[in-house]
Amino acid sequence: MAAQPEDQFKNVISHAKEYGFVFQSSEIYDGLSAVYDYGQNGALLKNNIKEYWWRSMVQLHENIVGLDSAIFMHPEVWKASGHVDAFNDPMIDNKDSKKRYRADVLIEDHMEKIRQKADKEVTKAAKRFGESFDEAMFRQTNPRVQKYMGQIEDIRGRFVDALEKNDLEALRNVIVEEGITCPVSGSKNWTEVRQFNLMFATKMGSVAEDANDLYLRPETAQGIFVNFLNVQKTGRMKVPFGIAQIGKAFRNEIVARQFIFRMREFEQMEMQFFVRPGEEMKWYEYWKEHRMKWHQALGFEEGSHRYHDHDKLAHYANAAADIEFNFPFGFKELEGIHSRTDFDLNRHQEFSGKKLQYFDPEINENYVPYVVETSIGLDRMFLAILSKAYEDETLEDGSQRTVLRLPLPLAPVKAAILPLTKKDGLPEMAREIFNKLKFDFQVQYDEKDAIGKRYRRQDAVGTPLCITVDHDSLEDQTVTIRHRDSMQQERVAIDSLEARLRELVSMESLLKTL
Amino acid sequence: MAAQPEDQFKNVISHAKEYGFVFQSSEIYDGLSAVYDYGQNGALLKNNIKEYWWRSMVQLHENIVGLDSAIFMHPEVWKASGHVDAFNDPMIDNKDSKKRYRADVLIEDHMEKIRQKADKEVTKAAKRFGESFDEAMFRQTNPRVQKYMGQIEDIRGRFVDALEKNDLEALRNVIVEEGITCPVSGSKNWTEVRQFNLMFATKMGSVAEDANDLYLRPETAQGIFVNFLNVQKTGRMKVPFGIAQIGKAFRNEIVARQFIFRMREFEQMEMQFFVRPGEEMKWYEYWKEHRMKWHQALGFEEGSHRYHDHDKLAHYANAAADIEFNFPFGFKELEGIHSRTDFDLNRHQEFSGKKLQYFDPEINENYVPYVVETSIGLDRMFLAILSKAYEDETLEDGSQRTVLRLPLPLAPVKAAILPLTKKDGLPEMAREIFNKLKFDFQVQYDEKDAIGKRYRRQDAVGTPLCITVDHDSLEDQTVTIRHRDSMQQERVAIDSLEARLRELVSMESLLKTL
Repeated sequence: MAAQPEDQFKNVISHAKEYGFVFQSSEIYDGLSAVYDYGQNGALLKNNIKEYWWRSMVQLHENIVGLDSAIFMHPEVWKASGHVDAFNDPMIDNKDSKKRYRADVLIEDHMEKIRQKADKEVTKAAKRFGESFDEAMFRQTNPRVQKYMGQIEDIRGRFVDALEKNDLEALRNVIVEEGITCPVSGSKNWTEVRQFNLMFATKMGSVAEDANDLYLRPETAQGIFVNFLNVQKTGRMKVPFGIAQIGKAFRNEIVARQFIFRMREFEQMEMQFFVRPGEEMKWYEYWKEHRMKWHQALGFEEGSHRYHDHDKLAHYANAAADIEFNFPFGFKELEGIHSRTDFDLNRHQEFSGKKLQYFDPEINENYVPYVVETSIGLDRMFLAILSKAYEDETLEDGSQRTVLRLPLPLAPVKAAILPLTKKDGLPEMAREIFNKLKFDFQVQYDEKDAIGKRYRRQDAVGTPLCITVDHDSLEDQTVTIRHRDSMQQERVAIDSLEARLRELVSMESLLKTL
Repeated sequence: MAAQPEDQFKNVISHAKEYGFVFQSSEIYDGLSAVYDYGQNGALLKNNIKEYWWRSMVQLHENIVGLDSAIFMHPEVWKASGHVDAFNDPMIDNKDSKKRYRADVLIEDHMEKIRQKADKEVTKAAKRFGESFDEAMFRQTNPRVQKYMGQIEDIRGRFVDALEKNDLEALRNVIVEEGITCPVSGSKNWTEVRQFNLMFATKMGSVAEDANDLYLRPETAQGIFVNFLNVQKTGRMKVPFGIAQIGKAFRNEIVARQFIFRMREFEQMEMQFFVRPGEEMKWYEYWKEHRMKWHQALGFEEGSHRYHDHDKLAHYANAAADIEFNFPFGFKELEGIHSRTDFDLNRHQEFSGKKLQYFDPEINENYVPYVVETSIGLDRMFLAILSKAYEDETLEDGSQRTVLRLPLPLAPVKAAILPLTKKDGLPEMAREIFNKLKFDFQVQYDEKDAIGKRYRRQDAVGTPLCITVDHDSLEDQTVTIRHRDSMQQERVAIDSLEARLRELVSMESLLKTL
């Protein structure tokens, strides 16, 4: 039986830890909330995703160039962008205790309490019928539990709706209607819900001087906008053209959770495409389609992605859509494609006093270009790939394996080179192959344990190919390639290994499918 | 005549701006001090340096793995590492005005004032003799100017000495002995010099809750130390082994200057190599040599690098050396190799209460490994490469070209594909070649302007190869490859272009020289 999505998600998280993909930040200090580190395999997978995106943008498109702008920017940038005024968290104060809370956290905690009540009922039932907790939960018909679950669903519906609409009154209504009390005073005497800014602030320079109040950028896009003219002029770019950038961004998030789905420190891959005003819808459609193709080229199963066209548009947009992915916790935004008009460039013109115009030689006109943006969360992409790749598989002989069916060119290690035994010159020959392949591919040498056990280890980190050197290899200069997904084996001449790997697992092979 | 180093440096900086390598951060807002953005060519060059380092570490060494830890870490990390207590800026207060200054800035400003006096004298002399300022400066014999220059040199000597020894009293002595006055009160009534921390601080969580005081990491190394056991266990690593990481770090620097040499936001490439206690000196010597080889493989001229062995060691080190590079402003640290003993892991054991030990099966012993670190500033490496590559060259025919002699595999664009003319099907054929090569290489198509002008444009951004499609190409399916450095041309079959490029400009070709 396939695992339930929730269990699947738990399995993915623990697998990610156990196999060096994702560790909690500062784990030995009991961790830092909503911040994660990428381990030895995670760092490679993440790099490969970056490379796939970067090369598909900058290398395959003649009219897209890269940029690497700093996290620190002039504070005026965030006034111009609107982040100082309109990038906030909903907070509420209790009038009796004078304590301040995040409105959403109060509601979350309230839901958690109800869930605990339900759990207690389930535990009771499990005891009564001699079942495990999961079994009891699975076939739960207890009306009290059902009532609790319904209550949670009802609250969650109103809660998510209020968050999405940024409706502070609706958020407060949930707190009042649910009779949520202040953990300190125990009273229900609440103020209005108000907004607090999500940007991380810091100071540059020493205190007694004129220290600058800086923000850690909450998005990479503004680094592209303020450099628009620098890049256009020095790169002699002609509209339409794009600027692509990968980099860290930071948000002091309300609901930072779901593993690496929403973190306080995260990484974005953003591309701003500058177009002639009036042509933005054509390019918007182009990028919607093109970005979907990029995702699908990774071989996800049918139905893993869907579009979500926005009805309610941000103030700067005249069209917007998400590419949603079917995460273990449901369809969620993976990438956004936004037609941002000339909002950003105009604002920067206004706030900086510098002209950000383009002279279009074809129509002999100066204008502020319109912008179509594609913006994808690198960590979300990582999670999407990892969670779809993970499988606990029962083999024909009844044995089990855990396999990560990662897209081949994105796998951390492309091939493991395994001498069948530790003697008879097999390790030497295997090492020779390793030393030949290592310049072009991330490969691994492993001689420890029985061959079956080594296959399983490589399956668990998603290595597409296991190259086994056996006694025949010494005779005929061939090796066995064992494929991760099919577990089929093929016999290949050592001389042709490099070409075979290039064909199967290189980034070029993936880019060529775009 | 070759340009003076100082002019050379100015030329490099303006070339970097003009050709899309480095822009000042938030330039349209008049910039942010000591923060820079990498433009379309800079981003590519920087990525290539990263790739060269990463692959030489993680791909070529079986026993080195990668990591990508977050910028945010638990605040205890920085107590354990010593950064909270001992990572500071020297500040001094004027007792009359109660104003606080950075001691070093006061001294710098004082030197600047003396320099301005000298400049005035030179300007006077220039006027008198009808020379340019530079000419007058060059052959300056005016005793007053010489006195000023000597004064500056004397102050700088004491100043740098005090900074290097972190001797606060000596720093104060410079201020007192030079009779530096407070710009506000005009008095010489100074306090002692005290230290203020260089880390950027921010807060996580909302204010009324228990907001965590966080620091932006001032080095990437601690992310490796706190993950030491996670990586060792999940990666089944055996000592000796290394963990390599590339990432941003932040320092509220005293003397942030010299373009991208010392920035407040910068990027490090660090590798921590964990070894058996007692074997650290062997590995220290290995890495000193190996890292030098890595630099030299890029083909810098003889004498560009030198070792600087530290006499005075940091509290955590039992051996340390820099690899210094001959920048336009002299030999400066480019990379550090440090034998850090078990200091860091011990401190984290102490502060976290978690054991950070390794069981060594070969000697059947538990121990805290010793660490040998290699730490290189990515931005410095970028500057080293760019400044050595830059050349204003006079050709045999007397004409001039500016050429960036970048190491071939690091060049932003590997080849430009140029149809000789815009007609007769040459653009179509050139584009076909472009479309074939673009999957494997960062290439560019350019048909604008005369061929000579296009060569110059590619020279200026360091493109190693220009592939020209001419009328013969239509006949015999060959093209001309024109080499950036020699300007020699060779005729090559279109079919063999890919192989020729792989041989000349691929990262693999560079890695194979290590």
